Amino acid sequence: MIRAYAASERAGAFKQISFDPGPLGDDEVELKVEACGLCHSDLSLLDEEWGETQFPLVPGHEVVGTVAAVGRSVTHLKPGDRVGAGWMSRSCLTCHNCMGGDHNLCKDSEGIALGRHGGFADAVRLQAAWAVKLPEGLDARSAGPLFCGGITVFAPILEFGVKPTDRVGVIGIGGLGHLAVQFLKAWGCEVTAFTSTGSKAEEARALGAHRVVDSRSKDALKAEAGRHDFILSTVAVPLDWNRYIAALAPKGRLHTVGVISEPIPVPAFSLIGGQKSVSGSPVGSPAVMGKMLEFCARHSIAPYVEYMPMSQIDEAFQRLREGKPRYRIVLENDFA
Amino acid sequence: MIRAYAASERAGAFKQISFDPGPLGDDEVELKVEACGLCHSDLSLLDEEWGETQFPLVPGHEVVGTVAAVGRSVTHLKPGDRVGAGWMSRSCLTCHNCMGGDHNLCKDSEGIALGRHGGFADAVRLQAAWAVKLPEGLDARSAGPLFCGGITVFAPILEFGVKPTDRVGVIGIGGLGHLAVQFLKAWGCEVTAFTSTGSKAEEARALGAHRVVDSRSKDALKAEAGRHDFILSTVAVPLDWNRYIAALAPKGRLHTVGVISEPIPVPAFSLIGGQKSVSGSPVGSPAVMGKMLEFCARHSIAPYVEYMPMSQIDEAFQRLREGKPRYRIVLENDFA
Repeated sequence: MIRAYAASERAGAFKQISFDPGPLGDDEVELKVEACGLCHSDLSLLDEEWGETQFPLVPGHEVVGTVAAVGRSVTHLKPGDRVGAGWMSRSCLTCHNCMGGDHNLCKDSEGIALGRHGGFADAVRLQAAWAVKLPEGLDARSAGPLFCGGITVFAPILEFGVKPTDRVGVIGIGGLGHLAVQFLKAWGCEVTAFTSTGSKAEEARALGAHRVVDSRSKDALKAEAGRHDFILSTVAVPLDWNRYIAALAPKGRLHTVGVISEPIPVPAFSLIGGQKSVSGSPVGSPAVMGKMLEFCARHSIAPYVEYMPMSQIDEAFQRLREGKPRYRIVLENDFA
Repeated sequence: MIRAYAASERAGAFKQISFDPGPLGDDEVELKVEACGLCHSDLSLLDEEWGETQFPLVPGHEVVGTVAAVGRSVTHLKPGDRVGAGWMSRSCLTCHNCMGGDHNLCKDSEGIALGRHGGFADAVRLQAAWAVKLPEGLDARSAGPLFCGGITVFAPILEFGVKPTDRVGVIGIGGLGHLAVQFLKAWGCEVTAFTSTGSKAEEARALGAHRVVDSRSKDALKAEAGRHDFILSTVAVPLDWNRYIAALAPKGRLHTVGVISEPIPVPAFSLIGGQKSVSGSPVGSPAVMGKMLEFCARHSIAPYVEYMPMSQIDEAFQRLREGKPRYRIVLENDFA
């Protein structure tokens, strides 16, 4: 039996449940959960911000744990291995995208939490291909948020060929942004943090930002015109898009990982003149997750987290609703 | 004295003028114009579609001619050389973009026609760096349109790394699109033409398109979902953008060279799920123009043109206003 925290209605409180997961699939692993990060997507699902959610819901998709059992055909993991798991729990492994290494773009993929058996539990199961080993030298306790917040901002840096010589910007210094700043600093770039929260300026510098721009100031944004090769938006609210496109250097890219509901109005002329791009991306593939973990270990990059026991899951969600975490909450398994 | 055709007011008729261009600049060449293509941008300038135009206006920026004189510091061209010239007539040569080979993105660039001394004349002058030699084997008479219409669609194919294994689409089979189809066919791609003009289906196939899709049909567009690695829009009218973004394969790019005045509404979600991009670009650099000419000579690619004498410039503009040219008008120098 797996024990987990489930919400049974929109914005509802969590209750402990237990369920029989049935026989372990041949290509699956079962992890004993050590800890699981709390991501804004969990809140979006709980509060039905993205449309209807299937309840009961067991969220949680930033899992660190140890392999407890492996399916018959699993050869690259063994019980006791310490692994992480993120948003995706399964992909087909045979489509063009999977075969090309872009498992994260598989059309037949499944999500951990979307499958209602997320990481706020004492155990989770997923396809072994999506359980990524933690390298030596990585702090496992704080690593959970790397598997969603981290990979979401790391993948586009790698996939879109950001260069150490680039001048880059990060919009929003929160769960995702505070990791993006650390990645890009270690990448060798000039890093500018765009934040609307005055109190975060100093923190952004501590994370590695060379420059901080007040994103509420039109004049400050205007002064960035033509500077940035890559701007990564981590926020899910509409922005002054024209100013950010103008802030791109020729051949620059404005990339969003924030799921904004209203369309981004992009004037063709603003793209054409400077040969600019606007793009987006989801989480990354297991291979890129592996690269990210190595990079984190090499550069001592870690999420800034607040630890809470999993039994305080309601308090944790409330804290997130109020925008208080600096920068990520990790819930540690305290099932009796 | 240079003789030219000038319009003195919005949508006005052309009159022959003559002017003294003064001494030839040290870094300039003077071309004796053989022929000059008529581009939709010329009409946009004449009709003030892009805002106020400075009159008198001598348009024309698809020039083929022979070098008549070279400035003192010009070493790579000599009188008698056959060259082409496009939209841009000068760049600074020293900024980051020029030094990096992206002269077309130079902030201090100047345009031939914008400088009011365009190619509908018996001679034009421009910075020698922007006069590109025609290779052996290229049909000079029809080459003019390559220098604006051609390079505008060739440059993004090269710059954004379109691969011969890609499935690509071209929206709009006109002055630009009919060249894009030829380029992409020779590039090795699977080419789909999107056209709203039923009568162009057969012509698109003759140009090299493997497939033709009726862009007025919602069902036909819907059936393209997930197919294309690269879609190049050559039209300047708003499209059903969501359908075209949906028509992209994962990691696909929707690229526009059409200057649409109203913003493209891009839903972040539609980019994020498939790691997709939306982008734009202007004309290309002299180096890329050189590559294009070589490619055209090697693959016998040429604009489909209608020849008219330059003295019939008013009739030519009217024909363009009515959308009649298949696919480009070239005005040949008939100054007495």
